[in-house]
Amino acid sequence: MITSFHPPQRTLMGPGPSDVNPRILEALSRPTIGHLDPLFVQMMEEMKGLLQYAFQTKNELTIPVSAPGSAGMETCFVNLIEAGDTVIVCQNGVFGGRMKENVERCGATAIMVEDAWGTACDPQKLEDALKAHPEAKIVAFVHAETSTGATTDVKAMCDLAHQYDCLTIVDAVTSLGGTELRVDDWGVDAIYSGTQKCLSCTPGLSPVSFSPAAIEVIKNRKTKVQSWFLDLNLVMGYWGPSGGAGAKRAYHHTAPINALYGLHEALVLLQDEGLENAWARHAKHHNALRAGLEAMGLTFVVPVAQRLPQLNAVSIPEGVDDAQVRGLLLQDYNLEIGAGLGVMAGKVWRIGLMGYACRKDNVLKCVTALDDVLGRLGAPVNHGVAVAAALASYGEK
Amino acid sequence: MITSFHPPQRTLMGPGPSDVNPRILEALSRPTIGHLDPLFVQMMEEMKGLLQYAFQTKNELTIPVSAPGSAGMETCFVNLIEAGDTVIVCQNGVFGGRMKENVERCGATAIMVEDAWGTACDPQKLEDALKAHPEAKIVAFVHAETSTGATTDVKAMCDLAHQYDCLTIVDAVTSLGGTELRVDDWGVDAIYSGTQKCLSCTPGLSPVSFSPAAIEVIKNRKTKVQSWFLDLNLVMGYWGPSGGAGAKRAYHHTAPINALYGLHEALVLLQDEGLENAWARHAKHHNALRAGLEAMGLTFVVPVAQRLPQLNAVSIPEGVDDAQVRGLLLQDYNLEIGAGLGVMAGKVWRIGLMGYACRKDNVLKCVTALDDVLGRLGAPVNHGVAVAAALASYGEK
Repeated sequence: MITSFHPPQRTLMGPGPSDVNPRILEALSRPTIGHLDPLFVQMMEEMKGLLQYAFQTKNELTIPVSAPGSAGMETCFVNLIEAGDTVIVCQNGVFGGRMKENVERCGATAIMVEDAWGTACDPQKLEDALKAHPEAKIVAFVHAETSTGATTDVKAMCDLAHQYDCLTIVDAVTSLGGTELRVDDWGVDAIYSGTQKCLSCTPGLSPVSFSPAAIEVIKNRKTKVQSWFLDLNLVMGYWGPSGGAGAKRAYHHTAPINALYGLHEALVLLQDEGLENAWARHAKHHNALRAGLEAMGLTFVVPVAQRLPQLNAVSIPEGVDDAQVRGLLLQDYNLEIGAGLGVMAGKVWRIGLMGYACRKDNVLKCVTALDDVLGRLGAPVNHGVAVAAALASYGEK
Repeated sequence: MITSFHPPQRTLMGPGPSDVNPRILEALSRPTIGHLDPLFVQMMEEMKGLLQYAFQTKNELTIPVSAPGSAGMETCFVNLIEAGDTVIVCQNGVFGGRMKENVERCGATAIMVEDAWGTACDPQKLEDALKAHPEAKIVAFVHAETSTGATTDVKAMCDLAHQYDCLTIVDAVTSLGGTELRVDDWGVDAIYSGTQKCLSCTPGLSPVSFSPAAIEVIKNRKTKVQSWFLDLNLVMGYWGPSGGAGAKRAYHHTAPINALYGLHEALVLLQDEGLENAWARHAKHHNALRAGLEAMGLTFVVPVAQRLPQLNAVSIPEGVDDAQVRGLLLQDYNLEIGAGLGVMAGKVWRIGLMGYACRKDNVLKCVTALDDVLGRLGAPVNHGVAVAAALASYGEK
């Protein structure tokens, strides 16, 4: 007979899920009510407002998709693209490759613009592609590459796309709530994120937002959206955008009620902290972590100007066994850090400082634990100096 | 400023979500761990075994899709169907219509076999369609129609489909855990369910299972699955089927960790009760509810032999305002019952007795509350007799 599963208390400093705020865990266990209950519909309206704040947008169609971030990505692509379309995808890591898969599975053509993993997408390369492909309808790229920790200048990319009459799809899975993101000011037409990164929530939902121009495209498609579940023409009947608390909601699918309680609580926490304060907090603790790791002699993959505070990719020192280190951190410290993905597998660690996990005690725990484990394995790093360097970054001894 | 959302304690006797067992709510709030954590992978293996038991199958590919039941439906269709295929869809309610949408969005042709809403699918009509359409590759139908409360003879339908070399897709959203369901004995090739019905869990996940013959079709497709998120060729790399606790898991998407804790707990509860005991419990309380409702003079939509115990569709008495009654039940009793869907909107109520909601106290609460509200509204029903009739069904006075 199988018995109840009781997970240990880990410290989650990988690429996500990140530590979940206890208030959010408690919210998940509140009583389930119906997905058409008038009180639930009120909560949905609040959720839309809270998400608009997090995304810094007035877009009416700003909702959580009832599935993880990859379904949010798919929502953007299947709704905006029809077979035969051309889409420019700027790739600088794993998730640009997933965008290409999405484009092709819609029967469209992906024009790939490649940049080195660990660097930003280059607007100049995008402009060259836009000139070479006047048939392109959409430009897609990742704001914060979770596989490398590099950030891209969203406004510069969107301005170019619009100059060439393209709409933009932006992956903000790792950026939302962690670093500056301004959907309206930057001209993003479709954006998706995840709940399990800088929002400190559990995985399973994907906040998305669509500009009026994107909605026009969706409403005027020649063909039906290939996914019934993700068809925004149907989803809008349940979530709005023009619903309002008094309007009648049409049943589409059964919303993940308790998961939405969790996201609502996460967004209330973000609202109460203030978005700019959350961004500043991620920067502050990143600086301390960086000081500690660099004091040990570890080096960052991404150039400073393009580096995300919430996803720290550092090279694994020569001769060190990636899996052994991560295994010891988990076994002895209940500390999870992330492995490399794709071409970076075995070469880098990805240390997350996301949402509730982005705290001083976690920074110190991480550098202490790494210092100990790498020391025991005889790795070629400087020992006993990391904590002091991190504390100095906080202005403390 | 928006504050935390604190839902009331409802009694959920609609078509789902149903009442969630408090043990499951508590499980949702356990500490989040990583989706590649060795302990999480162990939990996933247990989950597969528990789902195999619930579905009564040895199918290796038996997993929860990381999204609600409609995504489980889509998983079955997009993986087994390619453009140009012919699929026979037997429709006797809302969800057969959704199957048709799925078929057509795959670029395939749906041959519709229609039966009256509130009755079972007729195997004879299926055989006629199979004879008329030798090009058909798949037969799809609903085991337990959530929109009407009618059940269909799965084994008879699957036997016919196989005689004509078709695979079968079966919707078991409302049946799993509530009424007899034997995937292997009955010859089901692909099946999907939901967590928020007779499993008493929160909504958001969709258990699915695929036979070896179905997996062969998926592995030998000529074209890629149109959904990246739901592509089982990729999902299998994370969930198995041949994984085993020691095998390496490939990252596909981030699993909804805490929602899976809840489903694991729900399945442990089902295992501990015993599947046959759960089926018997649903039948017992249905009989009591039926006795009470019929004593009031309310009539069931579905003929006795085709009636589901867990979803009771009763006709709304002449001159009674559907929404007013449901509104008073919610306002005065915190009791949710379901409205009619599709052509049955405004004509029937759907009273659920699913999972943890399927208890004697709920049966008595429901007939008492209905008796009171219908009495206050002067509805043409017999008052003051329902509770006694329900108690008599339990063998009590």
